[in-house]
Amino acid sequence: MSATTRNPAGPGGVTLLGLGAMGSALAAALLDTGRTVTVWNRTPGRAEELVARGARAAGSVREAVAASPVVVACLLRYPSVQETLGPVAGELRGRTLVNLTTTTPNESRALAAWAAGHGIDHLDGAVMAVPAMIGSREGQIFYSGSRAAYDALLPVLGVWATSEFHGEDAGRASLVDLAMLSGMYQMFTGFLHGAAMVASLGVSASDFAARQVPFLSAMTHGLADYAKVVDGGDYTVPGQQSLDFSDLSHIVRASEEQGVDPTPIAAVQELIARQIAAGHGSEGFPRIYESMRAAGSTAGSDEGGAA
Amino acid sequence: MSATTRNPAGPGGVTLLGLGAMGSALAAALLDTGRTVTVWNRTPGRAEELVARGARAAGSVREAVAASPVVVACLLRYPSVQETLGPVAGELRGRTLVNLTTTTPNESRALAAWAAGHGIDHLDGAVMAVPAMIGSREGQIFYSGSRAAYDALLPVLGVWATSEFHGEDAGRASLVDLAMLSGMYQMFTGFLHGAAMVASLGVSASDFAARQVPFLSAMTHGLADYAKVVDGGDYTVPGQQSLDFSDLSHIVRASEEQGVDPTPIAAVQELIARQIAAGHGSEGFPRIYESMRAAGSTAGSDEGGAA
Ligand SMILES: NC(=O)c1ccc[n+]([C@@H]2O[C@H](COP(=O)([O-])OP(=O)(O)OC[C@H]3O[C@@H](n4cnc5c(N)ncnc54)[C@H](OP(=O)(O)O)[C@@H]3O)[C@@H](O)[C@H]2O)c1
Ligand SMILES: NC(=O)c1ccc[n+]([C@@H]2O[C@H](COP(=O)([O-])OP(=O)(O)OC[C@H]3O[C@@H](n4cnc5c(N)ncnc54)[C@H](OP(=O)(O)O)[C@@H]3O)[C@@H](O)[C@H]2O)c1
Repeated sequence: MSATTRNPAGPGGVTLLGLGAMGSALAAALLDTGRTVTVWNRTPGRAEELVARGARAAGSVREAVAASPVVVACLLRYPSVQETLGPVAGELRGRTLVNLTTTTPNESRALAAWAAGHGIDHLDGAVMAVPAMIGSREGQIFYSGSRAAYDALLPVLGVWATSEFHGEDAGRASLVDLAMLSGMYQMFTGFLHGAAMVASLGVSASDFAARQVPFLSAMTHGLADYAKVVDGGDYTVPGQQSLDFSDLSHIVRASEEQGVDPTPIAAVQELIARQIAAGHGSEGFPRIYESMRAAGSTAGSDEGGAA
Repeated sequence: MSATTRNPAGPGGVTLLGLGAMGSALAAALLDTGRTVTVWNRTPGRAEELVARGARAAGSVREAVAASPVVVACLLRYPSVQETLGPVAGELRGRTLVNLTTTTPNESRALAAWAAGHGIDHLDGAVMAVPAMIGSREGQIFYSGSRAAYDALLPVLGVWATSEFHGEDAGRASLVDLAMLSGMYQMFTGFLHGAAMVASLGVSASDFAARQVPFLSAMTHGLADYAKVVDGGDYTVPGQQSLDFSDLSHIVRASEEQGVDPTPIAAVQELIARQIAAGHGSEGFPRIYESMRAAGSTAGSDEGGAA
């Protein structure tokens, strides 16, 4: 509400707290569109380039917050947000806080509750982009929290990336983000584990990448089929590779035999083995989803619910 | 040698042991090219369709082996190969054995040693294809072992898929195959873990796939850069995301908070944490390779060797 009255979407009025790689890119993109940008960073000296491009450097968090109706935090993790914003809750009252620091869903929710308690409009964002992508439509930023703040700020948010609103539960954007990253890091790790396996025979990681990259890319197209099975909740649908067939003990063993630490593939095998032990060996591989999913979640459940 | 004198590349003479999904596809592709194919399967009744297409069904392994100069085994795992071939070592003498059963590198080597001891030419193959791809150039089969057997058999092998020879060490084809599969299964698992995380908020796996598939596919293009860093062995080259920044404790925590089993992402975090604990937090993410690689392998080593 206050956000709208103070016209945050206008050419003035955005403060950026945190001038790391991402915060600097966010500030620079706003400066490129002619907005008034006030910046602050814990360690001095990181604002110089932005100041040369027209930013105003604030001497303290308090001063920075007071300068604009819209305050963006792009710090490291949740504790740095608490440390930085805690002492200036009073100054934030009536302003809009956009948190672009990576936080867990529960941390985003805690921040939302704290903001509500202090009369601060709060929008939580999760950045699906590297700094070089900021200022184009190429990257994505997911938002959740105050819908009114999101709508009012769209002209600002749209400068940075493609924006997407995920709902009023402040934790949603973060959860979708972390779920996407979980998949990505597991893929990266799988590649590096494979590279370690072939390195034991003298094959370079680059030669392995030349094989593995097109293969993995092609294999991503099977994921939608797994998703259909998971959503259907019936892991006995025909045409699937069974869990018995997917038993990866031999890959774990091969890794060990080559002296390569099997930790990440052993974790996959653990999920498979749990389902086989529970008597589901003849069902499809995506059933390992059941080894992980939250007890209360609906998708893919064929047990315990009133079907 | 005997393989060449008996002309296995000619229109006659291939025996297939094992008529599962893959063995049947291999046999069918040979029949399509007009070759004489003898088939055997442990459980009777799986040869009927192939017999209708011109295959000869053998009543025993012994009879099947005696029928052709080239014997292909496509069974389940190594123990099934030992069980099936052990009793007919005498009949295999002077023939070429192509093992397309998935085995670990050491199992392939053990089979090679056993074959050499019985005067059997041995070629070990690893199939990078699903049965539906057999008979096209789309799939790949990696081979290692006897180069002479590979060269002589190329006209047969070429019927199935794109063939690639990986060296005389019989374990190589299998190792490259399992390394590729390790990466693939970790990617699959990462996707299903992410799907479980968003399911806790009611997002379907299919909706998650619509986001995750293009993202993962795009992210595969970063793997070649990781490979370069690993091959260079210097994890301090600029422009990398640091291990400190890649600390995934918050993803593990978010997974736990949502009630989703964090096993596979916790395994990744374990590899990261090990490198941070060893004092490498400011170095690049691909350094987790060092948490896995075999002590003796050369790529990526910056420790312990005479540099
Ligand atoms: N870079 C990316 O590719 C990317 C992508 C998506 C999301 N993100 C998220 O964006 C956020 C910032 O990332 P970044 O790449 O800009 O990181 P960065 O380059 O490491 O910068 C971190 C920033 O946080 C500040 N900071 C850390 N601890 C603090 C504390 N206790 N109090 C106050 N300030 C503190 C640092 O200030 P000092 O200069 O004083 O240390 C610096 O401004 C992170 O949450 C990250 O997960 C980044
Ligand atoms: N299918 C794929 O997508 C694929 C891809 C790459 C590699 N491969 C590899 O190809 C091989 C065969 O796979 P598949 O898909 O054909 O499997 P499958 O459909 O499950 O068939 C398994 C075959 O192995 C036989 N077998 C199992 N245990 C045996 C034993 N102790 N003695 C004799 N025969 C035994 C089975 O005979 P019964 O009929 O008597 O049980 C059947 O013929 C496996 O090593 C697999 O890893 C498969």
